[in-house]
Amino acid sequence: MAEKKLVEAITSMDEDFAQWYTDVVKKAELIDYTSVKGCMVIKPAGYAIWELLQKQLDERFKATGVQNVYLPMFIPESLLEKEKDHVEGFAPEVAWVTHGGLQPLQERLCVRPTSETLFCDFYKNDVQSYRDLPKVYNQWCSVVRWEKETRPFLRSREFLWQEGHTVHATAEEAEERTIQMLNVYADFCEEVLAIPVIKGRKTDKEKFAGAIATYTIESLMHDGKALQSGTSHNFGDGFAKAFGIQFTDKDNTLKYAHQTSWGMTTRMIGAIIMVHGDDSGLVLPPKVAPVQIAIIPIQQKKEGVLDKAYELKQRLEKNFRVKVDDTDKSPGFKFAEAEMRGFPLRLEIGPKDIEAGKCVLCRRDNGEKLEVALDEVETKAAELLETIHHDMLERARSHRDEHTYVARNYEEFEKLFTEKTGFVKAMWCGEQACEDAVKEKLSVTSRCMPFEQEQLADTCVCCGKPAKKMVYWGRAY
Amino acid sequence: MAEKKLVEAITSMDEDFAQWYTDVVKKAELIDYTSVKGCMVIKPAGYAIWELLQKQLDERFKATGVQNVYLPMFIPESLLEKEKDHVEGFAPEVAWVTHGGLQPLQERLCVRPTSETLFCDFYKNDVQSYRDLPKVYNQWCSVVRWEKETRPFLRSREFLWQEGHTVHATAEEAEERTIQMLNVYADFCEEVLAIPVIKGRKTDKEKFAGAIATYTIESLMHDGKALQSGTSHNFGDGFAKAFGIQFTDKDNTLKYAHQTSWGMTTRMIGAIIMVHGDDSGLVLPPKVAPVQIAIIPIQQKKEGVLDKAYELKQRLEKNFRVKVDDTDKSPGFKFAEAEMRGFPLRLEIGPKDIEAGKCVLCRRDNGEKLEVALDEVETKAAELLETIHHDMLERARSHRDEHTYVARNYEEFEKLFTEKTGFVKAMWCGEQACEDAVKEKLSVTSRCMPFEQEQLADTCVCCGKPAKKMVYWGRAY
Repeated sequence: MAEKKLVEAITSMDEDFAQWYTDVVKKAELIDYTSVKGCMVIKPAGYAIWELLQKQLDERFKATGVQNVYLPMFIPESLLEKEKDHVEGFAPEVAWVTHGGLQPLQERLCVRPTSETLFCDFYKNDVQSYRDLPKVYNQWCSVVRWEKETRPFLRSREFLWQEGHTVHATAEEAEERTIQMLNVYADFCEEVLAIPVIKGRKTDKEKFAGAIATYTIESLMHDGKALQSGTSHNFGDGFAKAFGIQFTDKDNTLKYAHQTSWGMTTRMIGAIIMVHGDDSGLVLPPKVAPVQIAIIPIQQKKEGVLDKAYELKQRLEKNFRVKVDDTDKSPGFKFAEAEMRGFPLRLEIGPKDIEAGKCVLCRRDNGEKLEVALDEVETKAAELLETIHHDMLERARSHRDEHTYVARNYEEFEKLFTEKTGFVKAMWCGEQACEDAVKEKLSVTSRCMPFEQEQLADTCVCCGKPAKKMVYWGRAY
Repeated sequence: MAEKKLVEAITSMDEDFAQWYTDVVKKAELIDYTSVKGCMVIKPAGYAIWELLQKQLDERFKATGVQNVYLPMFIPESLLEKEKDHVEGFAPEVAWVTHGGLQPLQERLCVRPTSETLFCDFYKNDVQSYRDLPKVYNQWCSVVRWEKETRPFLRSREFLWQEGHTVHATAEEAEERTIQMLNVYADFCEEVLAIPVIKGRKTDKEKFAGAIATYTIESLMHDGKALQSGTSHNFGDGFAKAFGIQFTDKDNTLKYAHQTSWGMTTRMIGAIIMVHGDDSGLVLPPKVAPVQIAIIPIQQKKEGVLDKAYELKQRLEKNFRVKVDDTDKSPGFKFAEAEMRGFPLRLEIGPKDIEAGKCVLCRRDNGEKLEVALDEVETKAAELLETIHHDMLERARSHRDEHTYVARNYEEFEKLFTEKTGFVKAMWCGEQACEDAVKEKLSVTSRCMPFEQEQLADTCVCCGKPAKKMVYWGRAY
């Protein structure tokens, strides 16, 4: 049977999670591989998710005063080198342009891996007076990092993202903006992507190259691995000093500006797959589902069935993203395909339903079926989509909470990371040596020092010295 | 006076059009120059125009069945070389990446100047059967062409654009899509940008590298120079043969696919400036104006004035993009600034207006002032914005028609291009030798063979041999 074939092609997630992920990405037609090693094609079904994500994130940005701009994709080598920590962090993984047309360039250019240096070069002229501040700019673009191992959406040599870059008169205002944008990301993940996150601060070892503080939201995938889902950096005046971004303040003195940057990427499509997906394929959160309701006619050759399906589409598409599958495949095949593609609601309509003045709505997230009177279909669909979002978020939260453990000493810590997969909360002394040791022995990294601190023990889980912070530890993508 | 200073800083367009253009671009804060030679920063006021343009063009695309995708920005050299004409056209102007991280690459990669080769490489696997056709994909991205002389928006080493790439089962369908997209561009220019265009076909000399036919829309700038404003290419099966894009047709035979591509770029912001602008600055068509109504309070320190301004903003922003200028600059300065930035309507409101229950609406395009009762302001603003669009389009059309001349022989042709600036319609024999001669002697190129042909004379304006086509000739950006 055709529908069997489609489903059988996916590896079960418990059997081989990595293979399951690759199968979903290919079978749901989100991406394709290319002749360009480490780069991917984002196909219509994948790009449509990105467009919905982008639109809703952009609206949230603009509500906080963000303005969009576009800066060049090339960074002259001398510009990249201006901030010492920054160049050390990025130089090993950039792509270099050495020729323009038939001529070698006088100075080589890297393809932006991130644009702090370009924004600084721009701001140093654009910012003169306190009246010019703050500048709260963002750009949507692609960036390049020459990764050795790549995986669709999660790690590729080129990816799409947004990068916000702001300049402020005071350290306080910069810190406030850094936290504000972290909260925008966290709310966006929960309210749009139905992904619960842990908010916290990165340790110095894990922070962004050139930042004084990096804040992060961390989410937990179905296989118990962590995914860094958005970061927000406070640069203090370090970049301003390296690039000479000064302004005349109200008191008529010349001061260095304070800066932030923050980014979220196409890897969130990977997060959607790995948080919500199941053995039948993708499960899309309703707010970023390119098709929210897939109408599948039953016995579509019988008179009136297709007409009714189109009529329902016309009614529903006033409020929802709707598609009718009127291909000549069997209903069973269409069901399996709609499941694979993750459409939140399936609407089944056949001759008997029409006679009875009803249809069936089937939820993708839990398979529940509901008979609905045809004249109530708009209201019911709206209610169900809201419930689906809510339930997906709560299911993901329960999964995360059930896979979040506590270790009070190294024995417990090691045992947990040997036997379980998930977050482990444990105390830390604040020394990088302990992070290095944990990484070497257990392949585990500090994910963040959460804003919600608990005093689980008095001593560091690694070295036994007095503890300073509670840390979320995990294996990460 | 401050307002004088702002305005005096622009060169008059009649005095020096190129300098006027540069002044507007800088003073209206659309772009900034960068340390990256030939690349620009698109600032918030410029990028907001691009976002509005992009949104409305994208909607028109999707209404014709276009789906968005994203392909890599790099093209391996061997892939670029697969179609002979194409590589000859583009190789001299691409940027080459030769190193990834610290390692030299085995094969160098060019930064895409356009993505035909990448789409072909993708389609050769994605298209197998007639059931897979047509594919009507588009991407929004930036491309790089290593130009020697650059000008903001009109010609820069990196620019933003969309590029549509389609695959079809038959030659007829490909030709139909090529013309369909040209019409989408033409309608978009007139209905959204208020720019009238000439639709036609490029001569073989001017067509795209690798196309069998290139169609174009050509517009006329205020200085009488032509601007190629959008192109749509029919590739026949040339690329399909070079890349092996074959499909099994209904009759069970293997056939080569037929392809098209079409693009429009950020240069349209340059067109907006040069078609509609005047000596006071930018004049934005209402549909792409980031601010459609600028509310300027008069005597704003008097009680109730600012409150009324905010109240009007709140009412108007339900239907329009509105801004209140409540800075402490003088009204005169604010007027000049709103004019420089090209906002279509200025709403003036002061204590006397409030007392009389009215306000003043002033049109940017012609300076006309209208007293409007406060309870009618929404209706009047909507009417005026529509009228402004209409009048801007008709003014541009009249200007173009007044600067379109007819030459029946070489003497007339040479005289027109010596004494006038604009389009010259003249007959052509079809030989490239005549285009080459005209270009060398007069620095004039064939802009297009318009769809609306006229028989102006029987002989070629250049060589005197029998004429085949009427051509629009011009000096172009």
